Order: sequence, then C-alpha cells, then structure tokens
Amino acid sequence: MATVYFNGNFIPKEEVKISPDDRGFLFGDGVYEVVRWYEGSFYDMESHHTRLKRSLGELKIEWSNCDIFPKVARELIKLNNLEKLAAMIYIEVTRGAAKRSHSFPPRDTTPTVYAYAWDFTPDPALKESGIKVMIKEDIRWSRCDIKSVALLANTISFQEAYEKGMNECIFVRNGFFTEGTRSNLFFIIDGTLFTHPESNYILSGVTRKNVLRIAVESGINVREEAVHENMTSLIQEAFIANTSSEITPVTELGGNVLSDGMPGKLTRTIMTGFEAEIRSLRG
Amino acid sequence: MATVYFNGNFIPKEEVKISPDDRGFLFGDGVYEVVRWYEGSFYDMESHHTRLKRSLGELKIEWSNCDIFPKVARELIKLNNLEKLAAMIYIEVTRGAAKRSHSFPPRDTTPTVYAYAWDFTPDPALKESGIKVMIKEDIRWSRCDIKSVALLANTISFQEAYEKGMNECIFVRNGFFTEGTRSNLFFIIDGTLFTHPESNYILSGVTRKNVLRIAVESGINVREEAVHENMTSLIQEAFIANTSSEITPVTELGGNVLSDGMPGKLTRTIMTGFEAEIRSLRG
Repeated sequence: MATVYFNGNFIPKEEVKISPDDRGFLFGDGVYEVVRWYEGSFYDMESHHTRLKRSLGELKIEWSNCDIFPKVARELIKLNNLEKLAAMIYIEVTRGAAKRSHSFPPRDTTPTVYAYAWDFTPDPALKESGIKVMIKEDIRWSRCDIKSVALLANTISFQEAYEKGMNECIFVRNGFFTEGTRSNLFFIIDGTLFTHPESNYILSGVTRKNVLRIAVESGINVREEAVHENMTSLIQEAFIANTSSEITPVTELGGNVLSDGMPGKLTRTIMTGFEAEIRSLRG
Repeated sequence: MATVYFNGNFIPKEEVKISPDDRGFLFGDGVYEVVRWYEGSFYDMESHHTRLKRSLGELKIEWSNCDIFPKVARELIKLNNLEKLAAMIYIEVTRGAAKRSHSFPPRDTTPTVYAYAWDFTPDPALKESGIKVMIKEDIRWSRCDIKSVALLANTISFQEAYEKGMNECIFVRNGFFTEGTRSNLFFIIDGTLFTHPESNYILSGVTRKNVLRIAVESGINVREEAVHENMTSLIQEAFIANTSSEITPVTELGGNVLSDGMPGKLTRTIMTGFEAEIRSLRG
C-alpha cells in the first residue's frame, strides 16, 4: 500500500480525504511540481523547489513549511522502497478548504499539501522513434508561467492529440509556437536551437533550462526566441522536453515529416548530453 | 449537519471523501452549476440543467444520470429544511478519480458528482448603492463558454478587485469588454442595452438570457454586440448579472463614475422586471 504525504503526515493513500470544500477541487486553485528520482538522486530538486515557491508566491498561497519539500520527497522515496528504482514525486499545494467564494479564504486557512511517489521510467521506444505532434491554437490562460493545477485546457488538448494518434499537442499563440500541453518545445533551424523565451505564455521548464545549458556546452548556438508558424518549412529538427519524459524527438510536426522521420542529429547530441548527466546521478 | 449528495447518495457532508486522484483536484477537470431556490421554486432550472449537459458534452464527461439533477436539487432543499427559505444549490461533476494522466482515464471511470444546498440571500445594499468594478485584460482561457471548475484566473482576478475595494473585476479581450469573473456584463449606451454576444469568450449566463428577454419585454432596445473599451466614455449605465447576486448596478467602472454614482434608470427598469418574476416564484 502506497504511503503518501498529506498535511504534515505520512499516511496510507487510502486514508487521504480531500474535502469537497478544497479550493483545488472547487477552483483549480493550487500549484504542483513533478520531480524525477534516478536511483539515488533527484534531478535538479533545487530548481523544482524554487519554482514551487515562485508558483505559490504568484498565487499568494502561503505554505509556511515549503522548505521541507525536498525532505518530504526523500522520505516518500524511502517509505515506498523506491530508492534503487527510477521514480517520480508529485506534490500539490492548494489554497486549502474553505466556504466556496471567489475571493480568497481567511488568511488562517491552512493550505492542503499532498505528495506521493511512484516508480516510473519513460517509454524508451518514443525516444528512438520520435513522436508525432499536432498543432493547435493556444486556448490556455495567459499565466502559463504559473505551474497551477487548473490544467483543463491542457488535458483536453492532449486528449485531442491522443485521439488523433499523436503524442503531444503543441500550441500557437498570435502566430508563434509556444509550448506543448505538458512539455517545452524546441526547434533546430539552420543549426541553431530555438525555443520560446521565458514569458507568461510558457512554463519555465526545469528540463528546458538544462537543455539550453547542455546545448551551449555542446557548442550549439542557442536563441531563446519564438518561432512563427510561417517559418515551419525552415524547421529541420524538433523535440519536446519535460521532467517525466526528458527529451523526446519530434519527427512529425502538424503533418510535416522532419529530418526524414528520424530523430535529428543535433537533437541526438543534446539527448546524449542529458543522458550522461542522468547516468552520473545514479547511485 | 448538512446533508449533501455524493455519487448517488445523500450523506452527511462530513462523510464526503474526495479522492486525491480526482481529476477535479488534479486538473480542474470538471464542470459546475449554481441554481437559486426562491422559497418554493428553482429559478429557471431548465436552463441550468441544459447548460450542465452542454458543459459535460463539450468536455466529453459522461454522467449518464445527468437527468436526475433537478430531483437531486429538490431533495437537497427538502433534506436541509430550506423549502421556505431563499437558498442555493451547487453541483460539481468531475471526470472522476484515476491514475494521473493528461489523457482521459478509461471510459468506465465513474464521474464524481457532488452537490449541496445552503440558505442564501444576496446583499440587498449592493443593489441599492451599486458597485465599483475594476477593468483588467482577460487572462482566462478561450473556452469561457464552458462552465468549468478550472477557475483560477477568475478567483485571482476577483481577489485583485476585492483588495482594491471593488466588487467585481471585468475583463477586456482584444479591446472589447467580455464579462466579469463571476457575472455577465451589460451597458446602456444611448438608451440601448449592449452585452457581449454568445461566444467562446463569455459564459452564456442564465440570468443574462432572462435579462435580455425582460429588457425586450420592457421595450428596451437590445444589441448583443461587444463594446470596445474606447467607447467607455459613451457608457451611461452598467450592471452585472449572475445567478447568485441577480442584477447589480455598476456605479463606478474602472474609476469612471456612471449615472451620477446611482443605479441608472434603465437598469432599475430591468431590475424591477426581474424582481417581479422572482416574486411570482415564491410559494
């Protein structure tokens, strides 16, 4: 039976009781993080922890104990016997349970904190084959920089891609590619790596940041600049990146086959660099 | 102790246990309705019920028992001894509890259905005095026609208004007034009633629809047409409307005092028509 963290205690998952007054349930009024565990270490826990604090701050959710997150995550790995496995941590912090009202509840309302761990390895076949992605107008709100649980736009868009036999839906806003429903988006054009700059239209991904660093270290020219959809024909390679699936090559973008339907050369260079980092984390 | 409806049963509220795997809690992946009870009858239950079915349909959430909603609402009024009072019903239907994944869960996943009732009367003082509203760029997603619980943009915008001493935040998208965080928005310009047409940028409000009908019946010219913010100086009267607060005059719009800071004449005409309808509902 899985042991989870809930409001200060490590308890069996079956004992968790989310109140129907929880603002996570009523309003999507909460934030979350997902962190990978690689048989001995978390991947860039510091960046995830920093982003969690930022998301909470942007929404003025006051989880005074936020500093304990890395310890909670470590304990969940231990309690669930995941130390020698590849695993994942999910944490969600909502504004807590209170009488339903659009305005925030009284300041002494305690946030709801829920975290759990499970064994997880991304599908290696998709890294080899690459994936197909669909393109859609960005229907999400304009604070995509906050990692909130109000993810309805993301889920229905991902599902739309899934039903079309694709593995991600990537968004275009005002003519520019932003990111995917659950990933950041990267293009290679003329040997240069492009990705949307940090802004309110994308999540500042932890893997995104590390991909950019690895690209620079690999001697690849990097431009944090949005790519317009009318430049689609110039795109030589594409990939997406996120915490759970790491780096996944895109071999078909909105019906256009890229790099002969194979993961591109520079994509592979960056994947190799990323995998080397992960190997060094393994205990 | 309040009796609520939860997944087929009328139970004490304390016994409701929302799963931490509920997609309402994890993704804001659910819809809701709020219906007024006026000492003997629901106000336009049919429209609320129709809209609930539409929201579920748009999100492909299959609550096969959706037809029972009016009966559930009526039973909650009875079980909570609210029959002779002014009251409110809230119902939320989420896609159910399942292993977290952006794609939809297996089709046999049961939706979560939660509904409760409470005694409620809107503050009469605000109808007399009118309210101040702030104006803000619409940060919400572009499917505002779906009454989803992914309301984070609404709550933080409402709170922003609240902290500035205002009673609502109204949105402008692409230069046009859309609606409020929890209300539809109406203007009187040159004796004509304007409101944003039905589209993906506003909720098709039940009170909105009835306001338009009452305006026509009162001989007021009606145009379902978006008002551009550069027409603000032409606005003579404004009001907002929603199920819970009915019709509330706006006497200050983004710092501009309207109709000498008093509820406007045509606004009062429409309010009077609305109140007459409500009186006829009372048992």
